[in-house]
Amino acid sequence: MNEFEKLAEQFRAFPGVGRRQAERFAHFIIRQKADSVEALASLLLMTKKSAHFCTLCGRLVFSTTEENLCSICASPHRDSSLLMIIEKDADLNHIERSGVYNGLYFVLGGVLPMRSEGAESNVRISELEQRLKDATDDFKEVILALSLTPEGEFTSSFLLKKLSDIRSGKNVIPITVLGRGLSVGSELEYSDRETLRHALESRRRTT
Amino acid sequence: MNEFEKLAEQFRAFPGVGRRQAERFAHFIIRQKADSVEALASLLLMTKKSAHFCTLCGRLVFSTTEENLCSICASPHRDSSLLMIIEKDADLNHIERSGVYNGLYFVLGGVLPMRSEGAESNVRISELEQRLKDATDDFKEVILALSLTPEGEFTSSFLLKKLSDIRSGKNVIPITVLGRGLSVGSELEYSDRETLRHALESRRRTT
Amino acid sequence: MNEFEKLAEQFRAFPGVGRRQAERFAHFIIRQKADSVEALASLLLMTKKSAHFCTLCGRLVFSTTEENLCSICASPHRDSSLLMIIEKDADLNHIERSGVYNGLYFVLGGVLPMRSEGAESNVRISELEQRLKDATDDFKEVILALSLTPEGEFTSSFLLKKLSDIRSGKNVIPITVLGRGLSVGSELEYSDRETLRHALESRRRTT
Amino acid sequence: MNEFEKLAEQFRAFPGVGRRQAERFAHFIIRQKADSVEALASLLLMTKKSAHFCTLCGRLVFSTTEENLCSICASPHRDSSLLMIIEKDADLNHIERSGVYNGLYFVLGGVLPMRSEGAESNVRISELEQRLKDATDDFKEVILALSLTPEGEFTSSFLLKKLSDIRSGKNVIPITVLGRGLSVGSELEYSDRETLRHALESRRRTT
Repeated sequence: MNEFEKLAEQFRAFPGVGRRQAERFAHFIIRQKADSVEALASLLLMTKKSAHFCTLCGRLVFSTTEENLCSICASPHRDSSLLMIIEKDADLNHIERSGVYNGLYFVLGGVLPMRSEGAESNVRISELEQRLKDATDDFKEVILALSLTPEGEFTSSFLLKKLSDIRSGKNVIPITVLGRGLSVGSELEYSDRETLRHALESRRRTT
Repeated sequence: MNEFEKLAEQFRAFPGVGRRQAERFAHFIIRQKADSVEALASLLLMTKKSAHFCTLCGRLVFSTTEENLCSICASPHRDSSLLMIIEKDADLNHIERSGVYNGLYFVLGGVLPMRSEGAESNVRISELEQRLKDATDDFKEVILALSLTPEGEFTSSFLLKKLSDIRSGKNVIPITVLGRGLSVGSELEYSDRETLRHALESRRRTT
Repeated sequence: MNEFEKLAEQFRAFPGVGRRQAERFAHFIIRQKADSVEALASLLLMTKKSAHFCTLCGRLVFSTTEENLCSICASPHRDSSLLMIIEKDADLNHIERSGVYNGLYFVLGGVLPMRSEGAESNVRISELEQRLKDATDDFKEVILALSLTPEGEFTSSFLLKKLSDIRSGKNVIPITVLGRGLSVGSELEYSDRETLRHALESRRRTT
Repeated sequence: MNEFEKLAEQFRAFPGVGRRQAERFAHFIIRQKADSVEALASLLLMTKKSAHFCTLCGRLVFSTTEENLCSICASPHRDSSLLMIIEKDADLNHIERSGVYNGLYFVLGGVLPMRSEGAESNVRISELEQRLKDATDDFKEVILALSLTPEGEFTSSFLLKKLSDIRSGKNVIPITVLGRGLSVGSELEYSDRETLRHALESRRRTT
């Protein structure tokens, strides 16, 4: 295997990259100027070196406070009685951009695979349990905000069972899930029964 | 233009049928046995002749009560204090199959085109106003259940203005819209701001 | 089953029509004026009645000569030493529009299914054999012009065996197949080996 | 802009990579072990350093002969009277794998953009002219083997004009283009006129 093939193989491991795209990436690198390739190689190393994870929420950050907290976990202006469990950094960033939430987060790091319940490896379940036990914040609510994909729903029900008797002081902390209903672009004719039921139950007065 | 071409042209007027499919339909007819073509021709005439529209909800029916009502509008078991406004028969059938609603319906017959507000032709706005005025049922709520497509939302806001002071006796009838939120299959990362906000506001306790 | 459902069921039998489109067709019919539905029903009957098939090539025609021949088979200006075997009327019409061929045709009526070799029903194999035997035209070449789909290629090889010793007088009639090569839009990188080989073998001087 | 964003921006420059995939790549890098990121960075540099281009055909190679020729250009077993002009390395590799050609190649490096004829930058036109002038090989034929896409055809006609009086000794070298016809999977009904004409002209006896 020559360098070109080795490099293409490395690119194949990138998320969502097939054989042909991996080869195109390798060709792209070869056609770049030597300077640019060197710059890319340094940037890879620097990015890896400078990345940290917030010790409270597990989110990726590049600068932290002394206590290794991210800006959200360190902020006195966030509502520390709410903890939203989300799957990944991109979800957190997306919700922050939308500006609809002001509580704290916990980044789960993935969803559970549906095949074998044992395989919890990447998903930070024990870290989550620890986070809830350590909480001096007296959470009043834990919000499960995973995607409504099969894996997301599977993970949600796993967590519901796992966290059902997490207490804050003497009180069991209530766990909520995001409301269901019609989303933008939905056509009534193609909506599933569950969505219809929730949309009807959560109907709102317009005035 | 020979008969084949004339027939293909007729089929082109069918919804969603292009030139090539129209020609395939015409070929299909020619290859059928004479008996089958005669049966199809009779069925077309009979279906057209036997179709009625419920005088209350405007829904397509094939058998009506003496007062020309459909089985839903004539039923004493439906909650006659609720009126759900939907776009078309297929939506009504879909909601009935889901079994999540037990009130009455009104079939609007379409959505308003967004280009020219004047073009109300196919949409049964005046029939809807009449239906609400005539209501001896004393509606307690009108539910706008249009699709969340641009045209559906445009029609909803048009109706909200139009119906804002419809009264039942001395009371203005409240108008509601279906709840928004995540629908089955939704990924958090790709959900729009409005959907996220509604999903958060309408979050539910799981236990 | 009411008339609407019966009609939708009939439409489902149309080529390429699914349940939902069939229902949309039925709704479309109901919404048409009574006049239009009557006109469509008559046209169906008339088209079926007035359609004939050319006794020589099997093509669909609406007016024939006394001998029940289509305009191509009856024409003295066509090259009657060439017979092109094609799958269906649409192929014949497409080739005529392209203006690249001036011989005669034979419409096979379909391709052989690949599962069971016995199922020759719709494909007019015996009519083809008869056509070749009856030929007073002394064909000099039979051109197999079926699609290069798996079924088309399967049918081509079946016919090649079947017709291999068809004679015109004492001579075996040569059978040819259409040339292969790159077609418009082809990218070299994605062309299969056979196509590349033919494209290379049949390369042409440009000047 | 932090390192993560800088890295994502670099990945966006990769062919066919959008914003979201670029971010996923950056996340992927961060989640890799430090060892793996270092290995990738070194491989990038090594691949860039060890890549050469054959001085005759312009193809990417990792090991060359003393004269900086690729294995094909250096081989005594190839037919050096044939030169095939192809767009890119992937085409060359694809043709080699198919085993249908034994001549030499010239890698053009791209196709001409159709907007402005002047923009020849990446396409190695002058190198091609030089290659043909220098040829001690006495080419007997130059084969234009570009894709039949609009840009490919545009480039082919540009080259046909440009190379029309390239001579080998006193003789003008004939230029050929790949044959056209039906390619695997083609349906007759959807074939364009040119393809049909070529398919008919290049029809072959089957026995």
